[in-house]
Amino acid sequence: SQEGKHSDQSLVFADLTPEEMVQVVRYLQRSLGVPLVDAYNANPSDNCIYYVDVQIPTKAKVLGFLDRGGRRPPRQALAVVYFGNQPDPNVTEYVVGPLPKPTTHQDITVQKYGGKLPYHRRPVLGKEYEQIEIFLRRETFSAAPTFLNRVFDCNGTNFVSLTSAPRGFQSGDRSTWFALFHNVSGYFLHPVGLEVLVDHSSLNVSQWRVRKVFYNGQYYKDLVQLESEFQQGRVKVNPVTRAPPDGGFSSMQPRAPPRAPFPLQYEPHGPRYSVQNNQVISQAWNFAFGVNVNTGIRLFDIRFKGERIVYEISVQDAISVYGSNCPGGMSTRYMDGSFGIGRFMYPLVRGVDCPYSATYVDTHYLVETETPETHKNSICIFEQNSGSPLRRHYSNLQSLYYGGLTNSALVLRSIATLGNYDYVWDFIFYQNGAIEAKVQATGYMTSSFLYGDGLDYGNRVGDHTLGTVHTHSINYKVDLDVGGVNNTVVAHDMAFESVQAPWSPEHQIQRPRLTKAVLDTEDKAAFRLHSNMPRYIYFAANSENKWGHQRGYRIQIVSFTGEHLPETSLMERAISWGRYKLAVTKRKEEEPTSSSIYNQNDPWTPTVAFADFINNETIVNEDLVAWITTGFLHIPHAEDIPNTVTVGNGVSIFLRPYNYYDIDPSIYSPDGVFFTSE
Amino acid sequence: SQEGKHSDQSLVFADLTPEEMVQVVRYLQRSLGVPLVDAYNANPSDNCIYYVDVQIPTKAKVLGFLDRGGRRPPRQALAVVYFGNQPDPNVTEYVVGPLPKPTTHQDITVQKYGGKLPYHRRPVLGKEYEQIEIFLRRETFSAAPTFLNRVFDCNGTNFVSLTSAPRGFQSGDRSTWFALFHNVSGYFLHPVGLEVLVDHSSLNVSQWRVRKVFYNGQYYKDLVQLESEFQQGRVKVNPVTRAPPDGGFSSMQPRAPPRAPFPLQYEPHGPRYSVQNNQVISQAWNFAFGVNVNTGIRLFDIRFKGERIVYEISVQDAISVYGSNCPGGMSTRYMDGSFGIGRFMYPLVRGVDCPYSATYVDTHYLVETETPETHKNSICIFEQNSGSPLRRHYSNLQSLYYGGLTNSALVLRSIATLGNYDYVWDFIFYQNGAIEAKVQATGYMTSSFLYGDGLDYGNRVGDHTLGTVHTHSINYKVDLDVGGVNNTVVAHDMAFESVQAPWSPEHQIQRPRLTKAVLDTEDKAAFRLHSNMPRYIYFAANSENKWGHQRGYRIQIVSFTGEHLPETSLMERAISWGRYKLAVTKRKEEEPTSSSIYNQNDPWTPTVAFADFINNETIVNEDLVAWITTGFLHIPHAEDIPNTVTVGNGVSIFLRPYNYYDIDPSIYSPDGVFFTSE
Ligand SMILES: [Ca+2]
Ligand SMILES: [Ca+2]
Ligand SMILES: [Ca+2]
Ligand SMILES: [Ca+2]
Ligand SMILES: [Cu+2]
Ligand SMILES: [Cu+2]
Repeated sequence: SQEGKHSDQSLVFADLTPEEMVQVVRYLQRSLGVPLVDAYNANPSDNCIYYVDVQIPTKAKVLGFLDRGGRRPPRQALAVVYFGNQPDPNVTEYVVGPLPKPTTHQDITVQKYGGKLPYHRRPVLGKEYEQIEIFLRRETFSAAPTFLNRVFDCNGTNFVSLTSAPRGFQSGDRSTWFALFHNVSGYFLHPVGLEVLVDHSSLNVSQWRVRKVFYNGQYYKDLVQLESEFQQGRVKVNPVTRAPPDGGFSSMQPRAPPRAPFPLQYEPHGPRYSVQNNQVISQAWNFAFGVNVNTGIRLFDIRFKGERIVYEISVQDAISVYGSNCPGGMSTRYMDGSFGIGRFMYPLVRGVDCPYSATYVDTHYLVETETPETHKNSICIFEQNSGSPLRRHYSNLQSLYYGGLTNSALVLRSIATLGNYDYVWDFIFYQNGAIEAKVQATGYMTSSFLYGDGLDYGNRVGDHTLGTVHTHSINYKVDLDVGGVNNTVVAHDMAFESVQAPWSPEHQIQRPRLTKAVLDTEDKAAFRLHSNMPRYIYFAANSENKWGHQRGYRIQIVSFTGEHLPETSLMERAISWGRYKLAVTKRKEEEPTSSSIYNQNDPWTPTVAFADFINNETIVNEDLVAWITTGFLHIPHAEDIPNTVTVGNGVSIFLRPYNYYDIDPSIYSPDGVFFTSE
Repeated sequence: SQEGKHSDQSLVFADLTPEEMVQVVRYLQRSLGVPLVDAYNANPSDNCIYYVDVQIPTKAKVLGFLDRGGRRPPRQALAVVYFGNQPDPNVTEYVVGPLPKPTTHQDITVQKYGGKLPYHRRPVLGKEYEQIEIFLRRETFSAAPTFLNRVFDCNGTNFVSLTSAPRGFQSGDRSTWFALFHNVSGYFLHPVGLEVLVDHSSLNVSQWRVRKVFYNGQYYKDLVQLESEFQQGRVKVNPVTRAPPDGGFSSMQPRAPPRAPFPLQYEPHGPRYSVQNNQVISQAWNFAFGVNVNTGIRLFDIRFKGERIVYEISVQDAISVYGSNCPGGMSTRYMDGSFGIGRFMYPLVRGVDCPYSATYVDTHYLVETETPETHKNSICIFEQNSGSPLRRHYSNLQSLYYGGLTNSALVLRSIATLGNYDYVWDFIFYQNGAIEAKVQATGYMTSSFLYGDGLDYGNRVGDHTLGTVHTHSINYKVDLDVGGVNNTVVAHDMAFESVQAPWSPEHQIQRPRLTKAVLDTEDKAAFRLHSNMPRYIYFAANSENKWGHQRGYRIQIVSFTGEHLPETSLMERAISWGRYKLAVTKRKEEEPTSSSIYNQNDPWTPTVAFADFINNETIVNEDLVAWITTGFLHIPHAEDIPNTVTVGNGVSIFLRPYNYYDIDPSIYSPDGVFFTSE
């Protein structure tokens, strides 16, 4: 019953099909002229394909096609290749095309990043983690048999390790603290107190070394020393009893049997939206969706009643900065985009993750493999009736009437599991033309082993478990195009003025008055995380509504962010988007993202430093992008066990019409209700 | 299928039944020894009953009964009587009891307010407004027949007036600006440009006078002067064309026919909660509810799994401070509690205001009448499945498993229509022990006639309509009792510390660390509206959870408040709760509310001045109350026509367990889902 018809225009934003991925891999194997190992099995000293994803055409080309009848831009892929088997190991990014039968590839690395990508910046492959795990078991733990046996009743094989990141203190470092946990369900909550600093910077795995060992508050040169001191009775031990396989307190097994089922939603005449390929259409909305391997969900060409409001809205990165008195914990500043938010969008469970009746869409990835992988049902689309009114008024003053409209909204959701955490990414489309981008955090916290002054860094949540304080910060790119590409940022707010009452000048009135400002430069439109910001900030069009006001879309942020990493930190520039709750920049094809997957392992020489985007350019009547940071401070507590709950841990961006229309467009909704006594 | 059984314990909080109201009225008529006129028909110079409501027993008495096996406190009523027909006109508050057959009444005015209540502080009766309307039509407009006829094509009978408030500049004033609107559907959007300042302070209606007239930017002594100047051609007119009866642009009539219906919720095995009298019970929650005539919904004795978390949570007041270049608008600082939030809770419409399948409850009032009035279906209770997970984790790291829980919550809702605005009051009870108090604004804005520098005070939203800037501020009383009556306020937050890496002292780490503080005095626990506040603030119990942490409930506020009225304003103390986003005070039976219905008409000598509650008392291990202000700045824009939408205009208070339990109690929900590949 949706208004519009599907078209294949949205395909210009479409993710690669598995067939396209296969073609790109075959082309690269054929054309790069060097041996390529499957990344699944690749050593650091091999060449391999890290991932292949779609290369979206430039905005100019896309708009030429969509808006000006230009030709459809050719389909292209982005292929990221690790060259470990070279005199000058590096990561190279290629644009490969045209699809489906590629004939050319172009090295865009230097053009995109201003230089080559040193090999040490590369994200750690699953294979590398596996090799570290083997290194720990075979070469490291074997040095401390008595210690492991007496303290943990094991030889290390029932440990699982959790990586920290970044991995050192300066460019080129690749030394990672691995904290060890009992390998049970929800192991993130079962630290055993042992952490090992592994230097895995060498491309020759046999050169990897343990640089330091931490146990229960003390540091040791290596496990040999720990074993020796243990045998001399000089190690203060704090043994952890074996957890049951289901994890005990960390188990997600319900502790109560099912009873009467919870309320369910049904659609009396079926869905009122439609999904075809990567396009969603409903009565008022249509948009294209896709998944970036690294950053996750992104939407393009969002239109309300046919008019484009947003060219692109996409997740850019999610970071967490941890405190702890254990080395892994205190080192941890995860940049989830580097691990890959998109590639970890897993199947959604009907009735829990999304409504039963939702439409489920599969996604396809080619990451660390040579064959595409499908994640079934990893995006869901549904209409959700909130059970409350979008608007209503009950009149019994002069006349008796009632008007109202149910708040039933269209939702696109994915959930990415980044190791321990699960991020629920929602994009919600309301009947009044508002869009909400919402993220909720759930899943497991990570934890540190509790000892000493641990309670300065969090709450105790288990016998030996310290829930460590950390931030969650999420950055979105919002390329609003309000009434066309060229926009200006305008701020409205209120201030009190003291005036004489015109009818009684001996009396003062404290009166709210509008304040209005055009934020005409990038510097003026960059708002520090905890600075004051005008309460209404909107992207204004060149056109006016019926009442003579610049048509606009307002940005409203719901956020509970913690403190941003101090700029004195040598790695801060790598996450400098986190300085700002909102920064508006002139859109540039060369500034497509606020972060980079290469920032995590070399934050000291950031491949992308968002702060550099803000160079005080004039942003009047230009194509503008809003970069928005939202998040929350997380001090884990007992109720984060077994999982963090979404309630109170959700943050949002609203994009709301502000004089964009002449009247609330929901008045044209077919769901409106009105009755009167007459 | 709910866990517990209903009991009649909640009746200690129950609103008056219609029978009880009738008994109180009869008793007063019999016992006061003066003639009482039905307030519906009362002149200012009459005596009448303003309202009768329940008088909840003191907390000591209630807890004696509920917790310590004491006797059930006697039922009592509060009767508010206007004494206009006396040498010293005043308002008197009586406690009348015991119900159902009252035998005594006690004047509590002086004890409650520290003095008598001068008559000029009384809220305006419907009858008084009616008399003003008549005064305007018969005596005022008749002075300007030519003007009205030529400019408005009428004689004033098709105008409706909207009151402003407060009504003057000093104690004793009762001079109100009435702005005139075309009497069509949604008249709030149809100002005609004419406003009249009526002095209705005299108890003798025939002494009422027009003190000033405003038309289209100019002030006149009265309508005689306006008529005269008009006839001399010295009035700049800006005629407003007659709106159609449905209001035209202000009509809520849907502009599109119905189509396929929106999704609906159903309960496969029926409701999982139960409502009996004023008590709601579900699997985990139970509480008592009631409606105060003035302040609206209030909940008592909220228990999760049998343990009391909150003794009382109640709306205290909702204020709006307006800016405008018209006198009515610039005078307006509505204190909705004075008009009566509870008494204007009107019927809820199934399927729009609440789900079809909700449980609807009637409420009863005795206000400005001698016979009880029933508002059908004015409270709804339902379980709402949010369509998203409360928690979930998908594991494919060491083992493949999935655990999750649908976020299905219990909701109690009422909607109060305060003239133009509709406030949606939700109390939401989550399966993890969290409570959310949420308020959303919808309904009509009020507006001013657009002229001159009007755009400094808002946006134009119609031919002659200025949507005027204003604040919405709402105050809640939250009497948390966490693990008992005696609590302490504790603040947790994070701060970065710069430390040498223990394993590599030549390198610095910027590390988040917990900051902890006991807010041991009222002054320390009072946070100005836009000041920094520690990110985690909680009420801590005297007891500890399994992990040795003080059991607590955290207060988290979602708010977009505008500026508070400057304290230089002579009326600011009347709304001084608005200075603080959070203030915790020692609970006192003598400080039951942060506002008073008598503040609106004499804000210069506030009957209750919340700021006085904060007198730096020690608040360690005491019965504490949190007073929380939330709200949003509203700069009306075209999309507020016909109604403000709830999307983005909702604000919340979350009460969340913080180390109160040993583990997330939702693990005991029967709705949990878990499966594994094993
Ligand atoms: Ca720039
Ligand atoms: Ca743009
Ligand atoms: Ca006090
Ligand atoms: Ca208390
Ligand atoms: Cu967290
Ligand atoms: Cu408003």
